[in-house]
Amino acid sequence: MKLIRFDEGRIGIVAEGDRVIDVSDVVGPDLPGSPPVAMNRLIDMYAQYEPILKKRALSASTSLSLDAVRLLAPVPAASKVIAYPVNYDDHAREMGQSVRAPAQGFFLKPPSSLSGAGEPIVLPAIDASRRVDHECELAIVIGKRGRDIPREKWQEHVFGYSCLIDVVVRGKEERVARKAFDTFCPMGPWIVTADEVGDPSRLRGRLWVNDELRQDANNRDLVLDIPGMVEMASQVMTLEPGDIIAGGTPAGVGPIKPGDRVRIEFERVGSMVIGVVQGDSGRGPLFRQPA
Amino acid sequence: MKLIRFDEGRIGIVAEGDRVIDVSDVVGPDLPGSPPVAMNRLIDMYAQYEPILKKRALSASTSLSLDAVRLLAPVPAASKVIAYPVNYDDHAREMGQSVRAPAQGFFLKPPSSLSGAGEPIVLPAIDASRRVDHECELAIVIGKRGRDIPREKWQEHVFGYSCLIDVVVRGKEERVARKAFDTFCPMGPWIVTADEVGDPSRLRGRLWVNDELRQDANNRDLVLDIPGMVEMASQVMTLEPGDIIAGGTPAGVGPIKPGDRVRIEFERVGSMVIGVVQGDSGRGPLFRQPA
Repeated sequence: MKLIRFDEGRIGIVAEGDRVIDVSDVVGPDLPGSPPVAMNRLIDMYAQYEPILKKRALSASTSLSLDAVRLLAPVPAASKVIAYPVNYDDHAREMGQSVRAPAQGFFLKPPSSLSGAGEPIVLPAIDASRRVDHECELAIVIGKRGRDIPREKWQEHVFGYSCLIDVVVRGKEERVARKAFDTFCPMGPWIVTADEVGDPSRLRGRLWVNDELRQDANNRDLVLDIPGMVEMASQVMTLEPGDIIAGGTPAGVGPIKPGDRVRIEFERVGSMVIGVVQGDSGRGPLFRQPA
Repeated sequence: MKLIRFDEGRIGIVAEGDRVIDVSDVVGPDLPGSPPVAMNRLIDMYAQYEPILKKRALSASTSLSLDAVRLLAPVPAASKVIAYPVNYDDHAREMGQSVRAPAQGFFLKPPSSLSGAGEPIVLPAIDASRRVDHECELAIVIGKRGRDIPREKWQEHVFGYSCLIDVVVRGKEERVARKAFDTFCPMGPWIVTADEVGDPSRLRGRLWVNDELRQDANNRDLVLDIPGMVEMASQVMTLEPGDIIAGGTPAGVGPIKPGDRVRIEFERVGSMVIGVVQGDSGRGPLFRQPA
């Protein structure tokens, strides 16, 4: 199953490659004043909803064209976006870092940084010499709550996968602040459920800026693999349905600028093209100086 | 108004100092499968709910004793817990740090680390030589969504305040991972709304371990003040109702151990006493070695 959020926060499934079936009514709208947790609810109760969605995929009388909808962040109210720094040796070398993922642990990106396949990366109005980089990553979406999940049991807790671009301002400030701007975490185009991907340990992921291939790696080369990332995150934190793990980026990170089009693709997951625009937000006191 | 979450996630207001009036029905239960967002909904729609709650405070026919309920994290589904490191000069000196809050920016703690006044700090089963420290902080709760909030407008976006203990494992790992364990962010005992606190720029905050006074400072000595913290966080991220800013800790941070009782108090906000217990979770691959 491929699950999307689209337009004004509707929930859909993608069938026949490019048809969108609106299934918002299955999960129902969020309560007034609520954060947008409909996808969290769908993931949490997926065992109950899956047969209904499958039936809909076969019997829906109307559908939309995937090209005609605006794709949004699949889980905008994820309680955690967990990211593993320096998780490929070639990226460690290009960054001049000797301490790698297993020893460093992880950091967090805010859910407010999540955006979707139909939304651009909006560069903040910070010092013009600051480099803003793309990082090509696989997103692992948690399906089932857990703490102290042993690596052998990782599959019980993984719901699905997406492509994810971890966008970052280079500099000496706290890593989290440099990675936290709104739209600095495009994710999508959908969540593909784990059953459609099978073994996720040998997926090729690529990222292009305009027509230039910048990153091209296979996640068999991860320092800390997916079972290890689930184990380590859950050693510290209770994982919740809808939580996202960004698995780290390989070599080839590089700058993006207004007008660029960033394409990311993971085999058996999907691909999306994200525009880059200059925004007017972010003129506050941080990042006013060169790095 | 003093707002609490208690027992199995009920919402209450505290009246006459020590009486709890259950107002769970006003906001209503969360939908099946939802994260616990009832307090987020209450904060988001507070203008609508406040008159109803005030009427209840005057007319409720039944109440509970504050001592008889178990206080939980007030906003367990906060979308962000934003923390400013090295935000008092005396703490910068004790940590040997020269780069202070305004230049560093902020980091994030996960919502899963939040716990309440009726819950202990559970120390993880990591290397026994690792020091786990308390940090006494004021929590600022956001009431109204905003990006690029200028410092003059901070008050429009602040809903209320709580006491907050930022618990941390010392070491060289990523700061976020060292601060992210479940129960490493006790907050409470309630959220007191901003109108009851007035000017929050000269509040004395103290923290004791058992009977020893460890931290005692006035937040007039913050490097980056509350309006500045709201401005800087919203320069980068859209702030949401229920988001929490932990304002940084003064000198006097120190270790806690099983059996300790940690008392935190902020004037005009409240106080709470939190136990410390040794837990069995957290035996995974991180923090297995001395710092």
